[in-house]
Amino acid sequence: MASDFRMHRRLLAAAARLTAGFALVSAGTAQDVGKPASPIYGVTIPDGYRRWLLIAPASEGEPLNELRVVLGNAVAVEAYTRGTLPFPDGTVLVKLAWKHVASPEFEAATVPGMATTVQVMMKDSKRYPASGGWGFGRFVDGKPADEAEHRTCFACHEARVKDRDYVFTRYAR
Amino acid sequence: MASDFRMHRRLLAAAARLTAGFALVSAGTAQDVGKPASPIYGVTIPDGYRRWLLIAPASEGEPLNELRVVLGNAVAVEAYTRGTLPFPDGTVLVKLAWKHVASPEFEAATVPGMATTVQVMMKDSKRYPASGGWGFGRFVDGKPADEAEHRTCFACHEARVKDRDYVFTRYAR
Repeated sequence: MASDFRMHRRLLAAAARLTAGFALVSAGTAQDVGKPASPIYGVTIPDGYRRWLLIAPASEGEPLNELRVVLGNAVAVEAYTRGTLPFPDGTVLVKLAWKHVASPEFEAATVPGMATTVQVMMKDSKRYPASGGWGFGRFVDGKPADEAEHRTCFACHEARVKDRDYVFTRYAR
Repeated sequence: MASDFRMHRRLLAAAARLTAGFALVSAGTAQDVGKPASPIYGVTIPDGYRRWLLIAPASEGEPLNELRVVLGNAVAVEAYTRGTLPFPDGTVLVKLAWKHVASPEFEAATVPGMATTVQVMMKDSKRYPASGGWGFGRFVDGKPADEAEHRTCFACHEARVKDRDYVFTRYAR
């Protein structure tokens, strides 16, 4: 019985953790309902982002040791290729990341291993006036990172790339 | 006059080099006419490939020091996501490559610098029966590499990844 009670309590706690970060009320579009949303910004992982277009790859050394790719929606690609700054409302960028793994076929090459984070930047100047018009979301295994981590997003983007509308990644030509 | 003659000879030589690798007669589709084509295979850089979908990134260490991304056309993505092997005719993969450059903003990160090569694999089992159904093209500044270099393509793919229909890159999930 005691064991049943503990199990029950554990399940409740797990359920609470699971729902804590969810967008119970739509934060943006109907698609957002019920999807895990970032603290502060209410940003969710956009549907179909894996089939968005390539902005650029990057590689992270120690301690992350990751391969990364930024993909953008149509609004993002249009702005990048025309050099439009600031990015228009509706721009969404998604950064995918994987651990570096040695290529099984080529000694000098590394290829994507385990997926680590998915990071989202979404431009909506009316919704995010306090952060340069951008909403941020950082997800690990599809679950948003905590509020403390999300407090660091804009501070870093603002300090380093304010002159590029707070966007680090350049279009790879 | 001697100088004029040398200039004339140089221009003729340059023109010959320029046209040597061109598809003067269509090797595949009407789009290929007049585009630089690879030796042996007659493969050209496909129109619009920069807006194809992400298959996977990779990183090359010494001596190449490159960031790379493989993009695929719709047939390629369909085959990859369904796990279809061998890849169907019409599959086209394009590998983009850039020199590693230190990120101006993050010490541990590298980002794309100068573009180096564009490499193409095109599946057409009737056209390329001697190379596993694949045609290969390697381009530097839009110009195809020479025949000797193209002789190495299939030998390497055959030796190392015959069991994956001669394709190195795996889909990054």
